[in-house]
Amino acid sequence: MQEIKALSLSKKAFAPFGDILDTQGTPDRIINHGKCERYNDLAKLDILDGLAGVSLFNAVARSLPYQLNMMERHPLGSQAFIPMINEPFLITVAKDHQGHPDRPQAFLSSPGQAVNLHRNIWHGVLTPLQEPGLFAVIDRVGAGSNLEEVFFKTPYLITS
Amino acid sequence: MQEIKALSLSKKAFAPFGDILDTQGTPDRIINHGKCERYNDLAKLDILDGLAGVSLFNAVARSLPYQLNMMERHPLGSQAFIPMINEPFLITVAKDHQGHPDRPQAFLSSPGQAVNLHRNIWHGVLTPLQEPGLFAVIDRVGAGSNLEEVFFKTPYLITS
Repeated sequence: MQEIKALSLSKKAFAPFGDILDTQGTPDRIINHGKCERYNDLAKLDILDGLAGVSLFNAVARSLPYQLNMMERHPLGSQAFIPMINEPFLITVAKDHQGHPDRPQAFLSSPGQAVNLHRNIWHGVLTPLQEPGLFAVIDRVGAGSNLEEVFFKTPYLITS
Repeated sequence: MQEIKALSLSKKAFAPFGDILDTQGTPDRIINHGKCERYNDLAKLDILDGLAGVSLFNAVARSLPYQLNMMERHPLGSQAFIPMINEPFLITVAKDHQGHPDRPQAFLSSPGQAVNLHRNIWHGVLTPLQEPGLFAVIDRVGAGSNLEEVFFKTPYLITS
């Protein structure tokens, strides 16, 4: 199995795949009479042929090293994953190569970070590292097929 | 000061004000090859004259008893508050009475619950009870005035 080391999320490395939602940098506004920072409009929502909705995902926690045996993508919409616990989670993504995922890349979030995967980006399924594996997800809701899956002959091993 | 006791969030009591996003009941789908529950499309997003966006709010934690001295509402859009820590937070809401908030009602969420306030519902500012007071917020992004505020002559005292 090929090993892939999970890196800390950084805006530059993650830019080809999606947005990082966090409180780095200066807030766009101070609201609520000084009591609250607003970091405004951090995710490029990109929904075709449907509407954006808010759903909850409750996933089984995984651990590292983690065998990545498939990836998926959603041609009709971006997908934002907001952890509802203050813990890191694992994000796996890949560039496209002729309709299949190229060699995957792996990232570990920091507590307080969320991500928005851009439309049609190859990614592994949601992989919390702690329970409850509870996330709010902002993605396309609506009828029609919006899922492509590719299973690897040989899994990759994601390591810390 | 008039005291208002904060109640546990319940769908029936909260229905006039907004949606509760949680994992009560049966998931709408099991996804990711059995590893993830999806509770689908839980928030009535209602955005006029603009787009829904995802922002982060980082608010100072409060404690109970809490003096509620003002409320606000947003005529142009609903507002979903998703806690990024697994802790309760305080939600204060009121029905409208001739353009002003009627007697407020107060609710305490359970860990793992988020809420979506419907468009134009009177509510107190975001009041986490633990730090980091970090929330993802799905609301209207765009130009134009979308805030009405009312300050009370005599604050209300929210108690546990």
